[in-house]
Amino acid sequence: MMQLNETHDVNLRSWVSAANEADCDFPIQNLPFAVFRRKGSDEAFRGGVAIGDQVVDMARVAEQNLLTGKCAEAAAACAEPTLNRFMSMGQEYASALRLALSMALREGADRALENCLIPMDQVEYDLPAVIGDYTDFYTSIHHATSVGKLFRPDNPLLPNYKWVPIGYHGRSSSIGVSGQEFRRPKGQTKAPDAAEPSFGPCKRLDYELEMGIYIGKGNAMGDAIELDQADEHVFGFCLFNDWSARDIQAWEYQPLGPFLAKNFASTVSPWIVTLEALAPYRAAWTRDESDPQPMPYLESDANRAAGAFDIELEVLIETPKMKAEGTPAQSVSLSNFRHSYWTVAQMVAHHTVNGCNMKPGDFFGSGTQSGPEHKEAGSLLELSNGGKQPITLANGEQRTFLEDGDTIIMKGWCVKEGAARIGFGHVASTVLPAN
Amino acid sequence: MMQLNETHDVNLRSWVSAANEADCDFPIQNLPFAVFRRKGSDEAFRGGVAIGDQVVDMARVAEQNLLTGKCAEAAAACAEPTLNRFMSMGQEYASALRLALSMALREGADRALENCLIPMDQVEYDLPAVIGDYTDFYTSIHHATSVGKLFRPDNPLLPNYKWVPIGYHGRSSSIGVSGQEFRRPKGQTKAPDAAEPSFGPCKRLDYELEMGIYIGKGNAMGDAIELDQADEHVFGFCLFNDWSARDIQAWEYQPLGPFLAKNFASTVSPWIVTLEALAPYRAAWTRDESDPQPMPYLESDANRAAGAFDIELEVLIETPKMKAEGTPAQSVSLSNFRHSYWTVAQMVAHHTVNGCNMKPGDFFGSGTQSGPEHKEAGSLLELSNGGKQPITLANGEQRTFLEDGDTIIMKGWCVKEGAARIGFGHVASTVLPAN
Repeated sequence: MMQLNETHDVNLRSWVSAANEADCDFPIQNLPFAVFRRKGSDEAFRGGVAIGDQVVDMARVAEQNLLTGKCAEAAAACAEPTLNRFMSMGQEYASALRLALSMALREGADRALENCLIPMDQVEYDLPAVIGDYTDFYTSIHHATSVGKLFRPDNPLLPNYKWVPIGYHGRSSSIGVSGQEFRRPKGQTKAPDAAEPSFGPCKRLDYELEMGIYIGKGNAMGDAIELDQADEHVFGFCLFNDWSARDIQAWEYQPLGPFLAKNFASTVSPWIVTLEALAPYRAAWTRDESDPQPMPYLESDANRAAGAFDIELEVLIETPKMKAEGTPAQSVSLSNFRHSYWTVAQMVAHHTVNGCNMKPGDFFGSGTQSGPEHKEAGSLLELSNGGKQPITLANGEQRTFLEDGDTIIMKGWCVKEGAARIGFGHVASTVLPAN
Repeated sequence: MMQLNETHDVNLRSWVSAANEADCDFPIQNLPFAVFRRKGSDEAFRGGVAIGDQVVDMARVAEQNLLTGKCAEAAAACAEPTLNRFMSMGQEYASALRLALSMALREGADRALENCLIPMDQVEYDLPAVIGDYTDFYTSIHHATSVGKLFRPDNPLLPNYKWVPIGYHGRSSSIGVSGQEFRRPKGQTKAPDAAEPSFGPCKRLDYELEMGIYIGKGNAMGDAIELDQADEHVFGFCLFNDWSARDIQAWEYQPLGPFLAKNFASTVSPWIVTLEALAPYRAAWTRDESDPQPMPYLESDANRAAGAFDIELEVLIETPKMKAEGTPAQSVSLSNFRHSYWTVAQMVAHHTVNGCNMKPGDFFGSGTQSGPEHKEAGSLLELSNGGKQPITLANGEQRTFLEDGDTIIMKGWCVKEGAARIGFGHVASTVLPAN
């Protein structure tokens, strides 16, 4: 389990002054990674590190030979157009680079990185990695229960839920980075009272508020990753919107799971917050006494003590009317990743217990992170009680599901006394009318 | 729809004499693609084309500038260590290269390719493409019905089956090429009469006999591929063994589908038979009159006339005892891809109707291709009636499910009067004991 070290010191300040603002997502204690280039340019994409309102251009850092040893190797990997090779190097390299950047960006350092900075508002992002395989989990018991009630009123939470970290494979080709716009999907749907299905644009388009998890170092096929080794294989977290077509899903999902209801688009935030940056926000993982104890491969003292993460999550909606009137996006839900019934380490241990091999850059969705309260639900399906009770926005507009032109914005951050704020930035994406 | 042309002429013969044998899988009318190198060498993998008992080394063809125009461009792409770029070029390039190779390998040609040949028994194979996304379909109604009976006795064939070409996403990282050996997976299982699940090696390990389908040219996100355009996006077919852990599957698969029961290993045959080579074996696609007519996006005259493929499929088992005694592998099942309830074109049209984007090298499994007769079942689950009735092999051994050391071999071929035999070679892989 990752220890706190000097890079987490709440008193550290950066010579990049915006990094020292109280509400900044990217203080010197964070240092998340993305892949970027100057907006509208045809430059090669390369890795960058966020500091305040600036991006450290890792290609430029690598070029200038500002670092040595493991840090130089890590920086060279970060200079590539995807972070897969950097991710493959494991925690040791990511940690060495983090320390070097922390030292170089601190108040009092020599500002050798100054000519490597590009203002964040002048960049655009790409996917930070080639995602080989994407797996979506289902780790919020609150989401599983309330969605289960809608799909299977008599049988909401299936008997395997408290034993198995339920997951299924998703589509990587349609994962895009924040800013993604996508067409409302068309497909087959069947009204409960209809004799036959019909075809047309999805009428129950929804978002899902998830954490995204990037795998770092992989494992060989046949070799399970043990629970207490899982951290060694997790590169970091981002925000993730797993767009969902509820009416398509209801008709297609049995017996083999969601397919076209999910694979038309999914959106990640550009910045990946490393596991090390999140160390101060680890939290105890607990179960109700009445819940079954996990099987041995999903159980350890370290996972009990600090397997969870205390990450605040928020969903905002910006409707075409709000855009036209210039009113800000409105929050519709607040939740927290600590409510997850299964930890990230348990996801990794479960996914590999059968010998399945992970590759650097592989991606997990956590599943929709609904909290225990109704208002903490991570999807409109839940907030609107299956489309029966529209939510009313401050400007009087109502939504049961998403309309064309709606933009969904998700934010995430960690705050507590005695630690620096660690922010995720945001992921925003917009529904276009069906083709 | 692909027309027959001179490359299909049954009377064509090659100066590679083994290609002219009646039972040869790789006559001059076939010309399938693989990625290979000399066995045991550290040569770079590159594309190759099968002819008789030889492999045409496409890197050598490209080097020697033996082709011109589109054929030269295609050959250069084939010389790469994966065929993704060649696949992305589309039918026009694959077809031009096929014609050029057909002409160069014919009896009477100048044998300029002679120094590009490597005996097939001296090569080893790699995956022919980087598979970005792998989707497994479920297109055999015979399989769906008999497996449905075992998992849901009261509800075998779900109401969506005859409307929706059911599919789900699979794991690409654990797909290997023929020769793959893998550890028996471990996982959670729950006996029907047990109060709680238990953990251990899979006790109901099974194969699934499938066709594999490689996507050629992709589509942009948001743009559906129309049924009658689907052929333009299909590169070719191979044999595919979708290994399955039935006991793990039964406990985990609800509500989101199979996961660890499938993602520990899947095996493809090395050779990809192109859609053009299969043109003589297209077959009419029919439905029972009592079945619902397909929705318009899944219906066309061309698909009715020739959407199916007449491909014989066979499963053989080679047990450790057979290996020790030197007796040949024994056939346990014969089936045919023409029984598929949905065509490959319908799979493509359905997968993209919501705007989902395909990339060159993406892969579909057809789903287990069980025929209408019990003996044509494509899995042991079906042949043994859910493990209740072991099958007896000629040497007296019995199997309900697979044992450690068992090798499963799948073969595929097309034969008919007036056309050349088109073979797929085989896919073989072996179960190792659990870790």
